Amino acid sequence: MPDRSFIIQSAFVFGTTLTIGVLTEIIYQGLTWWRTRRKEKNQFSKVLFFPDREVACKAHFQTREGCSHVNCRYSHKDTSLSELYKHLGRAEHSLDVCVFVICCKDLADILIQLHKQGKMVRIITDDEQMEMPGSQIWRFRKEGISVRTDHSSFFMHHKFVIVDKKILINGSFNWTRIAITGNQENLLITNNPDFVVAYQKEFEKLWKEFDPRNFNKSDLHRRKNQPPNSSTASWD
Amino acid sequence: MPDRSFIIQSAFVFGTTLTIGVLTEIIYQGLTWWRTRRKEKNQFSKVLFFPDREVACKAHFQTREGCSHVNCRYSHKDTSLSELYKHLGRAEHSLDVCVFVICCKDLADILIQLHKQGKMVRIITDDEQMEMPGSQIWRFRKEGISVRTDHSSFFMHHKFVIVDKKILINGSFNWTRIAITGNQENLLITNNPDFVVAYQKEFEKLWKEFDPRNFNKSDLHRRKNQPPNSSTASWD
Repeated sequence: MPDRSFIIQSAFVFGTTLTIGVLTEIIYQGLTWWRTRRKEKNQFSKVLFFPDREVACKAHFQTREGCSHVNCRYSHKDTSLSELYKHLGRAEHSLDVCVFVICCKDLADILIQLHKQGKMVRIITDDEQMEMPGSQIWRFRKEGISVRTDHSSFFMHHKFVIVDKKILINGSFNWTRIAITGNQENLLITNNPDFVVAYQKEFEKLWKEFDPRNFNKSDLHRRKNQPPNSSTASWD
Repeated sequence: MPDRSFIIQSAFVFGTTLTIGVLTEIIYQGLTWWRTRRKEKNQFSKVLFFPDREVACKAHFQTREGCSHVNCRYSHKDTSLSELYKHLGRAEHSLDVCVFVICCKDLADILIQLHKQGKMVRIITDDEQMEMPGSQIWRFRKEGISVRTDHSSFFMHHKFVIVDKKILINGSFNWTRIAITGNQENLLITNNPDFVVAYQKEFEKLWKEFDPRNFNKSDLHRRKNQPPNSSTASWD
């Protein structure tokens, strides 16, 4: 039978080792929890639905000074549009816009403001929609913002934006007034790299494909007059 | 100075405790890794871009027997459309479709097939687009599938689908032939509950709002003739 001092000594060594083990585990688990939390905090997903009941005040949400009107007719409360304003306005380096119709002056103003601040703004849009009344494309070109179009009778029908190559905004939402306060529309905002990387790749592909140097006048004429689906089997 | 036997005994107790600790940690970390991996495996995200270069063969991707044509004109290779076929066809319980334009016969066939298999198919679409040539809405109604529309001069412009209340398919893609082989279009597929729950909630909201019992003839007439944005401040 082991003597008393041996039991005490063993218990002491066992206790010390166990305490060190438990403390190390607590520290490790604490660090893991903090890292997971930070990661989760960095994972960002938001959904916006339209129509808004009221039109958000651009000055209130988009300028440092805020709105100076005492009886402002526009909304100072959060709306889907004000959320969109915030996300676009937060761009620190670049904004890649790939949207079918851009007619909303207030949203166009944000792009022009970012461009004037030296941020890289690139726009891809549909060539036929660009000719529609109210289109803001001519303003962009006048301001020196790069705009590329599809030169095709088909639609460049995407409606997505990538902020700083990190945040994707995508959905059914064209940049028109009717989309803000009339239609049923949605926008999904995410920084999930699975999505951001794929859409950025698509943007770069189209940006290259729609380089004006790729089109000459006869090419443009041919493409404009090409019947839909001529290269594929007919179906239905 | 402690005697030799004490050192040996202490080392033995220390070693045993350490071994138990290390083994426990290895088992714990293994379990954590397995759980994370299973969770990641369950997290699903996919992106589809159109136009497809070829039209996917519906028989090949959508029927158990497969395609019986020796020289089939359609594609048996994976395309964006074949991926969409797969995701829609995988519905086990329900399919909630909220799409602006539904003119593509092949995609409509899948909904009718699911309905005939006893799965719950609900469709929300735009009332004006429903009247367009090629619209499949009348076929759905003939087959007994529930369809609800907005009864408004504004657009029900969403283009999203929810499969089994678990997977969201959302983007710029209307269900038309031109969207498949002509236009630049995108679809984002995800089972992220942050997105699925929000879109499901929107679907249920619109399903309730567009209940035919909410509309009477005079109401319908009024809404059809309501000028856009009449309830909001004018802007721009």
